[in-house]
Amino acid sequence: MSHPKPRTASLMASPDDIEAQFYEALQQGDIERLMSVWADDDEIACVHPGGPRLVGAAAIRASFEAIFANGNVPAAPEQVRRLQTVSCAVHHLAERVTVPTAEGPQTAWVLATNVYLRTEQGWRMVVHHASPGSLGEQPPTVGDAPSTLH
Amino acid sequence: MSHPKPRTASLMASPDDIEAQFYEALQQGDIERLMSVWADDDEIACVHPGGPRLVGAAAIRASFEAIFANGNVPAAPEQVRRLQTVSCAVHHLAERVTVPTAEGPQTAWVLATNVYLRTEQGWRMVVHHASPGSLGEQPPTVGDAPSTLH
Repeated sequence: MSHPKPRTASLMASPDDIEAQFYEALQQGDIERLMSVWADDDEIACVHPGGPRLVGAAAIRASFEAIFANGNVPAAPEQVRRLQTVSCAVHHLAERVTVPTAEGPQTAWVLATNVYLRTEQGWRMVVHHASPGSLGEQPPTVGDAPSTLH
Repeated sequence: MSHPKPRTASLMASPDDIEAQFYEALQQGDIERLMSVWADDDEIACVHPGGPRLVGAAAIRASFEAIFANGNVPAAPEQVRRLQTVSCAVHHLAERVTVPTAEGPQTAWVLATNVYLRTEQGWRMVVHHASPGSLGEQPPTVGDAPSTLH
């Protein structure tokens, strides 16, 4: 890839910082900020809820541009669970999305896996895989509660 | 976790070996083999297509036992794309699932992200996130073709 990319993501940022930047960019509909969290790698991939697999920055950018053309995305990460090595951070979480309905705002949940690798530019996202969760106040998670409080 | 786990997965196995073992176990409906590919970590997670997030070995095992009670799973990985560091392997792929219908066998696609970490027991799966793809002969992937042939 020879395209210049915005480098607003800091070299010192942690995976949590990069994740926060990703969701802020979604909430703000900021395509440049959103793309700056991704690694410069042909194999990066994104799956939107119910959508196909998008591989590479061009396909991922086009998808988010189409989404932002309809407005920003009010998605906030909750119940983040983490696995980490020195060069890799794997986060899985529930995204709370507030949806306006005739009966007032409702909560929809999206389940996401976000993977970050440590690159020469610092931590960067390499995979965002999201799938439809459910409606209602409780996120659709089954299993043990987190062993540590955050 | 103090439960003894089967250790049929080899200490020398690569992420590709572990992935092959995972899909063979699905195809064979072999719960012990399937669980042996997972890391011994409370934060491991699995999302089946359209399902909730399952966290921890007990919830993951229960889900696959319920699936295998209805038969094995004829899922075969295709179009595997890889990102790897020394301690982490991220694979995203399309699972080809052959579904019997009144009009004969049809192909359904599931999109999956599989993440493996290098543990003291060797490479182990930590996340399997699968979501509904589409029907038809072509897997639902958008973007650049692989830069290397496998």
